[in-house]
Amino acid sequence: MRIIGIDPGLNTTGIGVIEVDGDRCRHVHHGVARTRPDASIAARLMALKDAVRAAVVEWQAETGAIESSFVSVNARSALALGHARAAAILGLAEAGLAVHEYAPNLVKQTVAGYGHGDKAQVAEMVRLQLALQRAPTPSDAADALAIAITHWAHERLAVRL
Amino acid sequence: MRIIGIDPGLNTTGIGVIEVDGDRCRHVHHGVARTRPDASIAARLMALKDAVRAAVVEWQAETGAIESSFVSVNARSALALGHARAAAILGLAEAGLAVHEYAPNLVKQTVAGYGHGDKAQVAEMVRLQLALQRAPTPSDAADALAIAITHWAHERLAVRL
Repeated sequence: MRIIGIDPGLNTTGIGVIEVDGDRCRHVHHGVARTRPDASIAARLMALKDAVRAAVVEWQAETGAIESSFVSVNARSALALGHARAAAILGLAEAGLAVHEYAPNLVKQTVAGYGHGDKAQVAEMVRLQLALQRAPTPSDAADALAIAITHWAHERLAVRL
Repeated sequence: MRIIGIDPGLNTTGIGVIEVDGDRCRHVHHGVARTRPDASIAARLMALKDAVRAAVVEWQAETGAIESSFVSVNARSALALGHARAAAILGLAEAGLAVHEYAPNLVKQTVAGYGHGDKAQVAEMVRLQLALQRAPTPSDAADALAIAITHWAHERLAVRL
């Protein structure tokens, strides 16, 4: 089972793919999709949606995970994030994947325990979890892997319960 | 030339289509697309995008207009609006239409002059502009027609200048 995690952003969207292998998970891919700030909003959203859909196909992901609404930002940021999230969700849905949402705090707790969960700590915990030689970069890609790991961890917990 | 105006909302999206006929414009269609609040966000965004794209095809619209960011709302509302706007913009873009954005205040000024531009006044001015017997309802559909009229009025002005 391959899980694709998405950390959406209008400028930079992180994409991370992991494969569940019994009780473990392993790294498959991470990277980012960027859109040109000088392009129209329609062109940027299409590019973002298409990049997510293409990643699902290329890395043969079977289920999707994305951060749920992060509302403690100002209205302008929230609107831009809403645009990017919608494009990413539509990219996953068009590819036929179910879309699971996880709150940002839950993602941090899952991968970084009860530490303060800053970006460097999340990337380092992702590195350890996936037995990578280096912490994945940029941070958007590391966050996307963290979201995928969160889905894996919670599905596993649900099966046990 | 047919213009489709969109007033995006996650629950209810207004859709209005007008036809430019020389120096005048006439009413073609207005209505709303609703999504089920109990459906997943992915399902709602897909339904909204598909409804916009289907309306473009059904009413043979050739260009699209949508309200630009309305940022004086709280972050939660802005995120939801961002989702809906992105789905509507993608519906227009997938149908091959250019997407023109107009600020809410500009739409009100264009159709309702310098009045206070409340929803009833906008609907009444849309009725007069399009020579309709009754003001279009619901208000989301009237607003969508107002956005289409705004695009027509500004294109016309641009041609004259």
